[in-house]
Order: sequence, then structure tokens, then C-alpha cells
Amino acid sequence: MNLQHYQHDLPFEFENGEIIENLTIAYHTAGKINPEKNNIIWVCHALTANSNVFEWWEGLFGENDLFNPNDHFIICANVIGSHYGTTNPLSANPKTNQPYYRDFPTFTIKDFAKAHQLLADYLNIKEIDVLIGGSLGGQQALEFTLLDKVKVNNLVLLATNAAHSPWGIAFNESQRLAIEADSTFNEKKDDGGNNGLITARTIAMLSYRTYQIYEEKQKDENHISDFFRASSYQKYQGQKLADRFNAYSYWYLSKAMDSQNLARDRKTLEEALHTIKAKTYVIGISSDILFPVSEQKYIADNIPNATYFEIDSIYGHDGFLIEIKALNKILKELA
Amino acid sequence: MNLQHYQHDLPFEFENGEIIENLTIAYHTAGKINPEKNNIIWVCHALTANSNVFEWWEGLFGENDLFNPNDHFIICANVIGSHYGTTNPLSANPKTNQPYYRDFPTFTIKDFAKAHQLLADYLNIKEIDVLIGGSLGGQQALEFTLLDKVKVNNLVLLATNAAHSPWGIAFNESQRLAIEADSTFNEKKDDGGNNGLITARTIAMLSYRTYQIYEEKQKDENHISDFFRASSYQKYQGQKLADRFNAYSYWYLSKAMDSQNLARDRKTLEEALHTIKAKTYVIGISSDILFPVSEQKYIADNIPNATYFEIDSIYGHDGFLIEIKALNKILKELA
Repeated sequence: MNLQHYQHDLPFEFENGEIIENLTIAYHTAGKINPEKNNIIWVCHALTANSNVFEWWEGLFGENDLFNPNDHFIICANVIGSHYGTTNPLSANPKTNQPYYRDFPTFTIKDFAKAHQLLADYLNIKEIDVLIGGSLGGQQALEFTLLDKVKVNNLVLLATNAAHSPWGIAFNESQRLAIEADSTFNEKKDDGGNNGLITARTIAMLSYRTYQIYEEKQKDENHISDFFRASSYQKYQGQKLADRFNAYSYWYLSKAMDSQNLARDRKTLEEALHTIKAKTYVIGISSDILFPVSEQKYIADNIPNATYFEIDSIYGHDGFLIEIKALNKILKELA
Repeated sequence: MNLQHYQHDLPFEFENGEIIENLTIAYHTAGKINPEKNNIIWVCHALTANSNVFEWWEGLFGENDLFNPNDHFIICANVIGSHYGTTNPLSANPKTNQPYYRDFPTFTIKDFAKAHQLLADYLNIKEIDVLIGGSLGGQQALEFTLLDKVKVNNLVLLATNAAHSPWGIAFNESQRLAIEADSTFNEKKDDGGNNGLITARTIAMLSYRTYQIYEEKQKDENHISDFFRASSYQKYQGQKLADRFNAYSYWYLSKAMDSQNLARDRKTLEEALHTIKAKTYVIGISSDILFPVSEQKYIADNIPNATYFEIDSIYGHDGFLIEIKALNKILKELA
């Protein structure tokens, strides 16, 4: 996929009224838009993913996969605040020429959709054949569809929700508290809050996975009170994220997830969902404890032309990235 | 209940070979041992509870409750390492006359049982009518029973396990990482790691409760990305613990929980459980995600004279402290 950047010339106003200048959106594309302009696949990435969907959704997106650049124009744009190239807390604030860090505005899922609509305008995209996203990406896909500026023919929502749950907010709050308890988060440097970020990611893993998968993969014996595999696994996962991400982006993105509520500035959740005209595939993972299947069923029940699918998996929320075979089976008619 | 202290005169050796002097055990009692010595109820407390069981298990233990001091001699001893009076990381190390902090030995559930056996010897208790504990307390009750020095007639195990799970260890590791990421944890003062402790407790809440209970109690609307009730609830619970506990005790106690493995120094888990002669009540909470009911069923399946009970509750692991009516119903024949 090719990395490109779109630079927005006008001030960008966030949902909370704050304004930034020089918004840049990083995005990857693969393939070409066909003459009929009916082969566009737009992907919304999850919390810490980049815009190169071939890297993190292998087996579903790739040269030889269901969604491939021979048949489709595939595009994925990095969200506001993310480490991977779109304007984020480590970007230079034009007013100070220093990184924003904690002076970055608090943004929402609605801000993601608004920003990516600017990119769609720039690329002259008026119709999307398949708009697809899981988790935070699914939240964004819903808001983008509700903007009703681009015609979405097929909408695919995985392991996501229409309004974030108190349970999900509590998980995110614990992660933010972990970052804030690391006093380096207030030091103005790019790796501020690094140890807090490591902890936060380990908390997130507990919401992405399940008892059963830890039981199967991290079991060991013969230790007294140290050196357990489960402990090493937590530290490994935390460090792995800290090596590729930053605490500021993570802190802000978790707040964006909390902001998900399609009913805000609309009448009700039900009515908002009811306006969606796209043929919609809503996919839940049976063991997901962060976005339980009840949330996906609720979406499917309220979008007029929606079908609910459930993938039986022990991987929990992460199943939407792992259960590739099941996803191919459900989505094959879209390719 | 009356608070008392037992001071052990000899060096106390931990499972890992380390030794401390001047072990003190804090314990509460209520009621009197009857002439037949068959009315002793011994309670093992959970992670952050004190030894005054009337305070935290109201409705089951109290003047007018099932287990009351008119009929029973009720005793609960504080575990090694706990903030509530037994020798712990804030106690003075006789070698330095300064608190141990992180120089305290790492201890295990087996150390709890060994220490409380010393107290039983001192009180000349050779037979316990009911030994009862939930969570960490249940882990300890199992080890105490397996010491086979005191005859246990009835054993009541709630929301506990015979070996701690990789999932449980991972939850505890995230909590320890939160404490360690707070750099004040390495400063030698009693409130070191306080912000980390706040975070750790909020993580623990996510293992003690459920999606459903957050949905019912912490739901709100009309916020953009701040001031959510679920966020406030997390902070409130974290601060509430930090006001009564310390990060050092918490860190060490979580490691003790991880150490639970009845098979260590024995042949197998199954064989260890098979040697228990007490009439055993094993009680699981349907929605417990930290100690799922499968762990309690396993215990009940392997103790010869055991019966499994399940309390249908949306409170998760905390149900063992909350579902008082259901507990009274199950345990009434023991009073």
C-alpha cells in the first residue's frame, strides 16, 4: 500500500469547539478506482493500528486476499490523534512550534468522521462500496455513515457499538489512570508516560482476550510466586506497544472511544440507526467481554437492512482480527 | 469483636526460605469456646479485608446473624503482609528499625496457613466446626485444611480456586505494573506508590464486577468525552482503597494470590483435594469472571464429601460478599 498525506488548509474545529490549524491526514491506498467508481473499500482502523491495512488484517486484505488491489481500490486513513501520521499530540503546535502533548484538544469519534469526510471530498469520493471497521473502527464507520455525505452501499461493523458502555469507559479510565500515575506523563517529552502506557496496554489485553485463551496459552507450573508465563506475557504485550506508540496518543484515543454515542446531537440511538440505508453486516465475537455481542445485536436490530453474524471464538474481542477464515466466509459476497 | 495480637517467639521461615523475627499476628474474636469445644468458626479474610468479620460480612456474621457470638466462638486472623496489624511491609525490620517496604520477603498462601496454624496452636484449637473463606480466604482455607493439624468438620469455600489461573495472574500482574510505574513506590515512605495503588484497585474492580452491573449502576448520557459516571466510579473506588491500605501490602498480597497451587510439594491437585475429609460446601457466583464457576466445580468434583452450590448473581466475584440472603440459605444448617 502507498502512504500519502492530505493537508487541510482551513482551521479544523473539534466537537468540543477547540480549533487546530494544519490538520494533516495520513492514509494508505492500494489499487485503482475503476471507471464505474464502484470498487471502493474504505477501512476504519482500530485503536492503535496504522493505516496500512495489509499489515494488520492479513488474510482478508492483501494481494491474494478477498479484498485485493486487483479488484478494489482500498483506502484506510489514520485517525486524528494517532501515532501513525495524522496530526496527533506529538505533532508541532503551530502556535508554539513545540509538540502539543497534553495541550492537544480532546477529540471524539464524530471528529474522526468529520476529518475523514474532508479526505473523501479531496479524493472526490461520493460512493463507497464497502465501509468496514472493527472496534473503534466500527464506531467511526457508524458515525461516517450517519454523516450521510458519501453513499455507503455495504457497511460492515465488527465487535463494536453504537454508544460506549460504562464497562468500556471503566476499562479505559483504569488505563488512563495508569498513564497518569506515571509522573513522566507530565514531562514534555515524546516518551513521557511510557511505563504507564505499558501498564495500560496490559489492562487492555484483559479486555481483548479471555480467561480461556490465557488458560490455553499461558499456563505453567512449578513456580512459587515469580516467573509465571502470564506475568511475562503481560509485560511483553505492554512493552511491544510502548515500542511503537506513545502514551499521549493512547490516552486521547481511549477518550475518543468513550465518546461514542450516536444519539448525541440526534434524537435517540434507535432513530439514528434507523436512518442508515446501507446493507449492513454486523459481526460479533461470542467471547468478546469488551464489546459483548448484545451490543452488536442491538445495532443489527435497529438498522433496517442489517444482518447479524456471530463468530464462535475463544479469542474474545481480538477475534475480529484473528478469525480470518470465518470473516472470509461471511464477507465473500462483497468481493 | 475484640482485637488481639499473638507474638511468635521463634524465627518464622517463609516458603521461599527467607526468615523474619518477631512475627505478630493480629486477630479478632467474638463469643466463647463452649465446654465441648465444638462451636469454633474460623474465618479467612479476602485480599484487603481486616480481621473484624462483623465489619465486612454483615448479615452473615454479627450479633443477630447466622454466625453470632451467642452460639459460636468466631475467630478471624489477619494474614501476613496485610495492612491490618499482622507483620507486613510497613512493620519495622528488627535488623534496621526501619519499615521493610520492598525488602519484605515474598510470601505465599502456604505461609498464611503456616502462620495461622501457630495461632491455632497458641489458642489450643484442635478442632474447627466451620472453616470459611472466600477468594484469597478460600485459597487459604484450603491450604490450612491440607496442613491436617487441626480437624476441620465443615469447610466452606466461596469464589476461590485450588490453583490460581493464568488469567488471575495476568490481572494481578497488571495491578503490580500500575504500582511499579508510580516512581514513588521506590521512595521509602508509607504512602509510596499511592497513585499506582489507586490504579491497581480500579483494575481489580473490573475483575470483581461485571459489564451488567456497570451498565445498571454507572450509565449516564449527554457527555462528550469527560465526566462519565463510570470514570468517577473507578477513581472513587481506587481512592477509597488508597485511604485505608498501602501499595506495599497490596503488591505482596497479589503475589500471594498468584502463588496458590495446592499441587506444589504434593503429587497432583486432584490427589491433594482428595485427602480432604471435611464436609465441604463449595459456592460459586454465576457471573464471576476472576474465579469462574468452573474452578469451584473442579474443587467440588475432587473433594470426596463436597457439594457445589451456585449463586445466580450479576455482581460477579464480589457476589460472595453481597449475596447475603443466598449465603444464609445455603449455610443455615451449619449454625
